[in-house]
Amino acid sequence: MEEKDIFCRIIDGEIQSNIVYEDQDVIAILDISQTTRGHTLVMPKKHYGDFLACPAELMGKVMNVAQKLGQAMMRELGADGVNILSNVGEAAGQSVPHFHVHVIPRYLDAQGGFRIEMQSQKVNMLELHDLADQIKESL
Amino acid sequence: MEEKDIFCRIIDGEIQSNIVYEDQDVIAILDISQTTRGHTLVMPKKHYGDFLACPAELMGKVMNVAQKLGQAMMRELGADGVNILSNVGEAAGQSVPHFHVHVIPRYLDAQGGFRIEMQSQKVNMLELHDLADQIKESL
Repeated sequence: MEEKDIFCRIIDGEIQSNIVYEDQDVIAILDISQTTRGHTLVMPKKHYGDFLACPAELMGKVMNVAQKLGQAMMRELGADGVNILSNVGEAAGQSVPHFHVHVIPRYLDAQGGFRIEMQSQKVNMLELHDLADQIKESL
Repeated sequence: MEEKDIFCRIIDGEIQSNIVYEDQDVIAILDISQTTRGHTLVMPKKHYGDFLACPAELMGKVMNVAQKLGQAMMRELGADGVNILSNVGEAAGQSVPHFHVHVIPRYLDAQGGFRIEMQSQKVNMLELHDLADQIKESL
């Protein structure tokens, strides 16, 4: 039998965590790393490997909770912004193979340990056009 | 009258873009920055300032399209991973005040211009417990 991932063990009550939200399908816990104050993870209780593998309806429920959490962070924690992030695959930084969404409050006066870097790459307009077609046709 | 943001202008056909998906409510375009090859933005056609301001049902539709795009990137572009990201507020890196979700394919052999840095912060277990309570009660 495959070993349970750490989130399944938390959901099954085998490992303690700081739960901030729970319903029949979805649970949200504080991320132990707290890259910023209030950094929370929302996930389905049922195991799906990642965002792409989760049935759309359940994924929608998870995102709905992420939205409520983000609103609460702005209202109650004094956050100036929020990042909503789900990493799919190790190549994208996913560390636990159980679909989860990071809700990361951001504060102007405390950068914490979370940072996103986005740098433009050189693009050829013709290539961009072909790329758009390629994705469009594969949907 | 307030000036239209660039995404509203794209949606209204005033500015050209590389559209990869479109339906009645949602549109997806290639991000001109192409931080990685295939970097796409999904958004509602109707203007909402950010992820937190968008009605949950419409937000779900946007996320549904993000999921399909991510699946297509893994299947057709040879991506090894995908990041799903929505930034709320300038403090979180939001650059256009029209709700959008980044779908960013990641490649093991080409890092591109996208990077996420997450560093654990020192946390006091008692404080964590109180913080969880504070968020829980504010939902």
